Amino acid sequence: MKQYNNPEKSTWPSLLQRPVQAMKQLEATVAMVLEEVRSSGDKAVKKYTKHFDRVTVDNLLVTQEELEKAGDQVSNDLKQAIAVAKNNIEKFHAAQQESELRIEISKGVECWRKSVPIEKVGLYIPGGTAPLFSTVLMLGVPAQLAGCDEIVLCTPPGKDGKVNPVILYAAQLVGISKVVKAGGIQAIGAMAYGTASVPQVYKIFGPGNQYVTAAKQLINKEGIAIDMPAGPSEVMVWADATADPEFIAADLLSQAEHGGDSQVILVTTEAQLVTTVNEAVAEQLDALPRKAIAQRALENSKAFVLESNGLVLDMINAYAPEHLIVAVSNAEQYVDAIKNAGSVFLGNYTPESAGDYASGTNHTLPTNGFAKAYSGVSLDSYLKKITFQKISREGLLDLGPVIEQMAEAEQLMAHKNAVSIRLQKLTAL
Amino acid sequence: MKQYNNPEKSTWPSLLQRPVQAMKQLEATVAMVLEEVRSSGDKAVKKYTKHFDRVTVDNLLVTQEELEKAGDQVSNDLKQAIAVAKNNIEKFHAAQQESELRIEISKGVECWRKSVPIEKVGLYIPGGTAPLFSTVLMLGVPAQLAGCDEIVLCTPPGKDGKVNPVILYAAQLVGISKVVKAGGIQAIGAMAYGTASVPQVYKIFGPGNQYVTAAKQLINKEGIAIDMPAGPSEVMVWADATADPEFIAADLLSQAEHGGDSQVILVTTEAQLVTTVNEAVAEQLDALPRKAIAQRALENSKAFVLESNGLVLDMINAYAPEHLIVAVSNAEQYVDAIKNAGSVFLGNYTPESAGDYASGTNHTLPTNGFAKAYSGVSLDSYLKKITFQKISREGLLDLGPVIEQMAEAEQLMAHKNAVSIRLQKLTAL
Repeated sequence: MKQYNNPEKSTWPSLLQRPVQAMKQLEATVAMVLEEVRSSGDKAVKKYTKHFDRVTVDNLLVTQEELEKAGDQVSNDLKQAIAVAKNNIEKFHAAQQESELRIEISKGVECWRKSVPIEKVGLYIPGGTAPLFSTVLMLGVPAQLAGCDEIVLCTPPGKDGKVNPVILYAAQLVGISKVVKAGGIQAIGAMAYGTASVPQVYKIFGPGNQYVTAAKQLINKEGIAIDMPAGPSEVMVWADATADPEFIAADLLSQAEHGGDSQVILVTTEAQLVTTVNEAVAEQLDALPRKAIAQRALENSKAFVLESNGLVLDMINAYAPEHLIVAVSNAEQYVDAIKNAGSVFLGNYTPESAGDYASGTNHTLPTNGFAKAYSGVSLDSYLKKITFQKISREGLLDLGPVIEQMAEAEQLMAHKNAVSIRLQKLTAL
Repeated sequence: MKQYNNPEKSTWPSLLQRPVQAMKQLEATVAMVLEEVRSSGDKAVKKYTKHFDRVTVDNLLVTQEELEKAGDQVSNDLKQAIAVAKNNIEKFHAAQQESELRIEISKGVECWRKSVPIEKVGLYIPGGTAPLFSTVLMLGVPAQLAGCDEIVLCTPPGKDGKVNPVILYAAQLVGISKVVKAGGIQAIGAMAYGTASVPQVYKIFGPGNQYVTAAKQLINKEGIAIDMPAGPSEVMVWADATADPEFIAADLLSQAEHGGDSQVILVTTEAQLVTTVNEAVAEQLDALPRKAIAQRALENSKAFVLESNGLVLDMINAYAPEHLIVAVSNAEQYVDAIKNAGSVFLGNYTPESAGDYASGTNHTLPTNGFAKAYSGVSLDSYLKKITFQKISREGLLDLGPVIEQMAEAEQLMAHKNAVSIRLQKLTAL
């Protein structure tokens, strides 16, 4: 980790800059594949699955039997772990349910908001070497709690044309019945436009590589909602003398192993800590199977030594980390000073891994500084709120003149007339 | 209004299609102006204000004195009306405040979510013939309730280089201190990138013409949040024999006067009603100052006669109207069947104008079918939710093995190690 001691605040923006994603160059390819999926449906999805994933898929949908039998290939230990995680995620997200609040604004004027599930949602689960079943839980549990009618899951098939059984096991566990063997741009296109096999959805969730991200951006411009913009994963760790350097090193490495472009930042008021953490990182790194990836990420990682906790908090809020670990004494006292972050882990015994898997909070979080304006995935991400209002005759007699006055001042006379015509009838009664 | 009697469901998608917005053609212009604002700041904003709005502006910011004195030019009647509307909007949006819910997931594992205001937000208020001060209230009140630190308002200056005093009066009333005399693409660019006069914001709200909409889409792709995608305004009215054709006509016209591309749809089970509503529309139209605009919108408007309330509800949910007026007997019984809509007005004495101005609900709503996945602007639009968690030693001893099991199954050994290294120290104690 490169160490910076008390850098000037004016240099922070450049020091904290994320690697730029070269989306623009991909857009032509992405737009072309999307257009072909829109016009040729399943045929295009299969064509590009063959092209990009190098596998021929006859039937895009996983069969009911495959889904039901997936559990046979999952160990009981893993099943039990998944059950605990699912239960915790349910607990945390179920608590986000809001009751309908009916407000009497004035006599005869009632307004309220109702949470209504988004009817059709699509979940994207990336492929790759390992089955990301934890993301199935993170996206599927709130979708089911929200009551979405149709939940479609797309994930690229392996070289054998099959979907990893743990993904399928997690999918059926959260009540997803439609699993599509497709990934990449073609999967996003299939969910955005609908094909013979894949229902069109109104919102698409989930992480992915830069092609998936670019495809989500493009269909978002066409009016399909997406969970949030995406960028490489990242962690910022704030540690002081009470932190355990070995724990900090392990937390930094857990982020670094995600990908060579992962962002790993240590910030502290104790210069000495940087040295001990660096030593622990070097020691732990060797034992990791994903050492090469972690090493690449570490090459771009930074350690900042700042003069005060106030400056540390300023830097946290300027960076807006996806994950923030606060390994300092009395960590909780700083909660109110943290203004920009996705998810925050307090104390020495709260590793990011806990939130990644099993404590109950969602692991789909805003990266790339988007935590300044975006929240992570929650129950709300699967709901929209419809406002309702009901005005009685008395209510309109009272509020009507206010509306007339304002409409007239905006020179919208038909808006005014919609009230006037009612008031005339009411006063003529 | 063109009348359709019992059209086949298969024809609904084409019958309910919105006019296509030709965004693609604008994008080159929009991208060019944005880029120039990014590189040249205020200079570019002034240049394009002169170019597009044909007015020279020396100082982009409205002075404190102008803000304070704006009220002198607003009538007392209008001030009182604005006060009532502001109070109602505050009441409805303040009720959306959520208390922090701390969950003990299991012994020693505590998780919670905290609502935190988006620090810097930008509000866009379109120019044009009339001062849209109601939108200042709709966007400004929840921004202030949320506690946003910096609220910037951009609105194009009139030919005299000034901002309409009612806009300024409403702005200072909701506590906005930074009003920028700029509109169009250059205003969106200034708020997205920041200039010497205009602070950079993290989220941009507000309606606008197709240039503004395209600019918002482009900066959204760069990671600045926006309130929602936009399209022409629209109303769907569901009426039965108990509805008053004159009221229905007035409601349809109030939408039609917005613009020639406004969408106005009547849906009913009573064929006779279409005739009487058409007559009332013809009669009321003549008296409207914006008759020409309303007429153009009416030319594209449609009346559907369907066989059952069930089919009507299907059509409502398929169209997902921005505004839905339910002028049928016992309107409230249908609330749970309405799945896709922005804001719903129940009964004969609840005109859309009420929600547009003064009942308290927000008038910034999803158009273009986006109500299938998006909500209107609310207090939440100005907040993000940060998740926090705190795990004790006992909590990690209990939950740790679950995390280890899952991380190992995902082949993320550094994730596992972040737990293992802590468990080792704990069990060695």
